[in-house]
Amino acid sequence: MIDNPRSPRVRAAAKLAKKNQRSETGLFLIEGPQAVLEALHYRPELVVEIFITSAALDRHPAIAREAARSDVRVESATDAVLTTIADTVTPQGVVAVCRQFPLALDELLQRRPTLVAVLEEVRDPGNAGTIIRVADAAGADAVILTGTSVDVFNPKVVRATTGSLFHLPVVVSVELESTLQRLREAGSRILAADISGDDLLAVRSDGHLDGPTAWLFGNEARGLTDEQLQLADRAVIVPIYGKAESLNLATAAAVCLYESAFAQRATAAAHPH
Amino acid sequence: MIDNPRSPRVRAAAKLAKKNQRSETGLFLIEGPQAVLEALHYRPELVVEIFITSAALDRHPAIAREAARSDVRVESATDAVLTTIADTVTPQGVVAVCRQFPLALDELLQRRPTLVAVLEEVRDPGNAGTIIRVADAAGADAVILTGTSVDVFNPKVVRATTGSLFHLPVVVSVELESTLQRLREAGSRILAADISGDDLLAVRSDGHLDGPTAWLFGNEARGLTDEQLQLADRAVIVPIYGKAESLNLATAAAVCLYESAFAQRATAAAHPH
Repeated sequence: MIDNPRSPRVRAAAKLAKKNQRSETGLFLIEGPQAVLEALHYRPELVVEIFITSAALDRHPAIAREAARSDVRVESATDAVLTTIADTVTPQGVVAVCRQFPLALDELLQRRPTLVAVLEEVRDPGNAGTIIRVADAAGADAVILTGTSVDVFNPKVVRATTGSLFHLPVVVSVELESTLQRLREAGSRILAADISGDDLLAVRSDGHLDGPTAWLFGNEARGLTDEQLQLADRAVIVPIYGKAESLNLATAAAVCLYESAFAQRATAAAHPH
Repeated sequence: MIDNPRSPRVRAAAKLAKKNQRSETGLFLIEGPQAVLEALHYRPELVVEIFITSAALDRHPAIAREAARSDVRVESATDAVLTTIADTVTPQGVVAVCRQFPLALDELLQRRPTLVAVLEEVRDPGNAGTIIRVADAAGADAVILTGTSVDVFNPKVVRATTGSLFHLPVVVSVELESTLQRLREAGSRILAADISGDDLLAVRSDGHLDGPTAWLFGNEARGLTDEQLQLADRAVIVPIYGKAESLNLATAAAVCLYESAFAQRATAAAHPH
């Protein structure tokens, strides 16, 4: 039982709230029973240790079971210890320390991805996490966060993905221009979501959603710069048919990614091979 | 200048945070410069009075200008008064008292709506507001909130609509079964978003998104009951192609409403009349 919030292990875990500490150690924090279970289920080899209160252990017996199956160390801890470690006010009695697991861009490209989301200067953790969740749901092969975007292992991003971070690979810290160039060489059409773009419905009618696609999403406030837009094959807007000024970034991304997923599947159904 | 947070007018405005007070008076609160400007722009006849700090008046001269044009009373007030009235921690120096403006279901049906969202037991203010925003963006004719859903004039809902509440009509406090029956009689197909439903892509291929449509969205945690589902013509799921457990309600609604909007427009383009 760990009951001292100032013990070295607790302090080391708590420091993972900071980006430089995450970068130095290659570790990050997972908070809450659902996210910890997703990690144990999909990526158990990456979970280093779990801190859990006895109340949470009683409420979520699957955590001890799954941890034992994968030889993950489980430490009983007090509420005070949990509160010290966690970024959330109520981590619901459980946090885990986990190794980061970015995928190399090379490796992603070798897998011949058909649907990828690229995030450039996406700064809001909630947006980044929600886009990872929707990319997972839409069957995307990966999410790429360039070096100008929020750190995907930030606790707020991890939380907003609601487990999807453990479902699909993420590529991080890459540079935009060369990444898009290599995606294009690997056969993807680059579509940039931008208010200056062509109507998504017209792009669909042109058949430009049918093949392998990488969607580029930019900063939530400023959108994409002219230079960034020129790196894409086509700029695309989710049309606003009513009087709303805009959609938020994550909602626009959901519509774009699902439209691609539908177009790719409709094409596959029409031309079976 | 109103500087007493306990003056009767300030207390009356502050009470509009409570549902029973909103029902009794037929009034509600709008908070923040953007929302107040949207109300003045789209529905000035409904704005009763505006409380604003001198700092906010300087920062947003359009508020005084638009209010003067529509004969809306503008009251200078202190920060303490604003804080007392507002539901938000930082209303950015301006709140407005506004008359509620639900549309009668009869009137909506006379307008022959082609796309409507119906919310049954949607309880989270953020979800309800976000669905109103996306319904506006997708060009829906109205959003209907049955009596079991959150009050649309709740400050948190108003905020989450980011102005869209003033862009499209809302119908409130109606009963689900008779509402769906009347929408059907008026020519709409009733589609229920539910995890037990048919794949949205298959429904689209069947041409079932092409005509006038009312989408039914249920409780964010429990979804729709069997009884509620039987009131619809067809249940539809946004397919999950990856490993995500689900989409959140507002994201699923965005994909459904845009898919309908696209199908209706693609059909109109193929068969011009």
